[in-house]
Amino acid sequence: MGAYHERPGRLQRAPENFIDPAGVRRVFAEARSGRRDFLRGVLASIGAAAASSAAGDPPAVDASATADAPAGDPNILRLPEHSKSLGRPVASEGYGKPSKYEANVQRRQSPGLTQTRQASVSFAPLQSLFGIVTPSGLHFERHHQGWWDVDPSGHRLMINGSDASIVRTPKVFTMDELMRLPSVSRFHFIECGANTGMEWGNVAVPTCQYTHGMLSCSEFTGVPLNEILDTCGVDFKRGRFLLAEGADGSSMTRTIPMELVETGEVLLAYGQNGEMLRPENGYPLRLVVPGVQGVSWVKYLRRIEVGDQPYGTKDETVHYVDLMPDGIHRQYTSTQECKSVITTPSGGQILLDKGFYDINGLAWSGRGKVRRVDVSADGGRNWRTARLETPVLPKCLTRFHLDWIWDGEPAIVQSRAIDETGYVQPNYSQLRAVRGTRSIYHNNAIQSWLVQESGEVKNVQVS
Amino acid sequence: MGAYHERPGRLQRAPENFIDPAGVRRVFAEARSGRRDFLRGVLASIGAAAASSAAGDPPAVDASATADAPAGDPNILRLPEHSKSLGRPVASEGYGKPSKYEANVQRRQSPGLTQTRQASVSFAPLQSLFGIVTPSGLHFERHHQGWWDVDPSGHRLMINGSDASIVRTPKVFTMDELMRLPSVSRFHFIECGANTGMEWGNVAVPTCQYTHGMLSCSEFTGVPLNEILDTCGVDFKRGRFLLAEGADGSSMTRTIPMELVETGEVLLAYGQNGEMLRPENGYPLRLVVPGVQGVSWVKYLRRIEVGDQPYGTKDETVHYVDLMPDGIHRQYTSTQECKSVITTPSGGQILLDKGFYDINGLAWSGRGKVRRVDVSADGGRNWRTARLETPVLPKCLTRFHLDWIWDGEPAIVQSRAIDETGYVQPNYSQLRAVRGTRSIYHNNAIQSWLVQESGEVKNVQVS
Repeated sequence: MGAYHERPGRLQRAPENFIDPAGVRRVFAEARSGRRDFLRGVLASIGAAAASSAAGDPPAVDASATADAPAGDPNILRLPEHSKSLGRPVASEGYGKPSKYEANVQRRQSPGLTQTRQASVSFAPLQSLFGIVTPSGLHFERHHQGWWDVDPSGHRLMINGSDASIVRTPKVFTMDELMRLPSVSRFHFIECGANTGMEWGNVAVPTCQYTHGMLSCSEFTGVPLNEILDTCGVDFKRGRFLLAEGADGSSMTRTIPMELVETGEVLLAYGQNGEMLRPENGYPLRLVVPGVQGVSWVKYLRRIEVGDQPYGTKDETVHYVDLMPDGIHRQYTSTQECKSVITTPSGGQILLDKGFYDINGLAWSGRGKVRRVDVSADGGRNWRTARLETPVLPKCLTRFHLDWIWDGEPAIVQSRAIDETGYVQPNYSQLRAVRGTRSIYHNNAIQSWLVQESGEVKNVQVS
Repeated sequence: MGAYHERPGRLQRAPENFIDPAGVRRVFAEARSGRRDFLRGVLASIGAAAASSAAGDPPAVDASATADAPAGDPNILRLPEHSKSLGRPVASEGYGKPSKYEANVQRRQSPGLTQTRQASVSFAPLQSLFGIVTPSGLHFERHHQGWWDVDPSGHRLMINGSDASIVRTPKVFTMDELMRLPSVSRFHFIECGANTGMEWGNVAVPTCQYTHGMLSCSEFTGVPLNEILDTCGVDFKRGRFLLAEGADGSSMTRTIPMELVETGEVLLAYGQNGEMLRPENGYPLRLVVPGVQGVSWVKYLRRIEVGDQPYGTKDETVHYVDLMPDGIHRQYTSTQECKSVITTPSGGQILLDKGFYDINGLAWSGRGKVRRVDVSADGGRNWRTARLETPVLPKCLTRFHLDWIWDGEPAIVQSRAIDETGYVQPNYSQLRAVRGTRSIYHNNAIQSWLVQESGEVKNVQVS
């Protein structure tokens, strides 16, 4: 029945020892031999069933039986407990949880990446996810001074101007006041500006959870900010910049250009994937700035000031800037350019045999929709156009797929996304020719995964 | 700053005593007086800030401060703890949870609806949800003999024929084999055929969680069933019907017409909202039959048999049938016809003042896309066309909105959906003229909510 490979999520035993290839191979060897014994029994039964069903009887085999057949008679299969007993009741918990067999699918800290766990990151397990929605329980985290579960009944949002003529009617809103206004719900990706940052230095962290896992995608619900500003009497001619300020101890502040707000895309969001935002993601109120790096999506949003010039806060002048080859810092580079990553096969996974694989991954652009994704299995010499899942939405993840037969030889798989503006995701040579090698942020280069002859997949850089 | 209303999810203290209007009003009175004191302080500060900021200083007020100002000086506001302390670390839990302030947003059993909690229902809290995605932890449950957390490594799917010539190559698949095949991800609603069933008898259960909460919507990921059948050598001319069989103790079996499968829509699904299916929803494998009632989305799917006639199983001949006025049972009525429900304002909610409200709710059709939703605030005499959230996807929930000013008089709000086939959601007179009053299943009538002069919203039937 052909080769198979384990779901990568279940391969990852702990964040400390990313992958133990020997252990994985042993588990697979056991599983495979067990499965083959089992299948021998099943197939024998099916043969008998097929013979008897020619006479109208249904096949007698129970395909869901576990492999615990009594030794000596492979044709006798015991029914599993769940096929003959009473299960668990409804609503035994008010809020459901994943299967215990999925316990290894977690967001994870990168060992040693940060000095404290309050100013740190946990990465989303992209290699284990499907489609485009990131479950809120697996959404990546990036905190500057830890997270809070803020009481919404005490939370306020103030809108004011840098001077009284820019905002004629400053206002303070309760959550209830914001939530009774007309809302919109839209699917958008959020990516930290530092995502894939370790790869500038060719650290080659082992899995796509760590290379690209500061990326998530949700359906966000909230009130378009431009409509709120309108009710506050904003002078849109003079007020060309906003300062967004969070209520947590990091005093996060970021400048948002008014031209982004005027499109109606920027939201005062309280909903995420159908429910209220999670505490780690800014409950009860977060600024959603589609296409822009995550740091501008200010969490625990408490104040928006409208002014006539950029604010030059620490988080846009000192942090989240790009050190260019000439020694100058590039600032205010907040739009996330077109990018993609193959999540299967990806670093840390093991292909257990030659044969068919569904190469798939994610593509996105802060400029709009993804137009096309190309996939190479030979390190960029030849490219084939991938199938895109629909609907393709602007500033949202798009899942792509390409059929692939692995012949057992070493192979380098890559994906290259092109967005609706015509921008093509660069390779490392192209990116470094402009940006050098000393950046941390805004790395959107093509990711390469090496499938070794052993089937083990490694992170490599191809220039 | 105008009136406001509490989020309905927080109004529901327990499933037993659905709503305690007196208690809710007391809480609101306290919150409101507290808020007004607080706002007095804030507004005074803003006045001072506006004066000073004319000279270039930023406003000094902290808008997110809680209302615990020292008595006697409303202008001095204490910073909340979360604005001056270190928060909680990242990845403190492997899988995130909602805020503690959202603890009342739960799926709930309807008291007394079923004799046991294994053959029962828990309803999704539609009145607290946004957009179209249902968080998997709040997805409705309907079990016939309880739920299981089935070990995927032992689970098998068998494909066979009712006789050997209909399926030339019967096969047994492991989960790993299915999951390495090319997959698709699509957003679809799932609705139990018995949803809104109590309303046939005009029981008028109090909230939309109980009237319409056997409804959810997710991004499902899986393998199109027609492609798998093709690899098994199915004779599609003779094999016009499938039997889908679950592995749990209820031995759930349903007939699926091959014409649905041939469109490529029916999926062997393992993914839901980006991660593996939840145990209550059939982990590790569930049949997804878009547009068709939930009972056909067989959970813990272990076997599909292809045959040349409907199977007439107990769950389609005795259950999930409609008793018509002439005493005949209507069978095999599995497509969910076009339907909608207003979730705000809805039963159990309280409008605390006159003024603006964003009437919104959900519309769906098992026949394709929703084309239009009309909303009435006068019991169906006048209708206005609602705004539909995009993208509008086939066999998927669509969120609609309509601006409404409540004048304080009693009002009956209703929504009426029209799908792309031109089918118009019926009112109760129209539905009962054909179907009588003795059904349990397949009630897609227009739902009416009465907003009383007191602001309390009640479930009423308007013929």
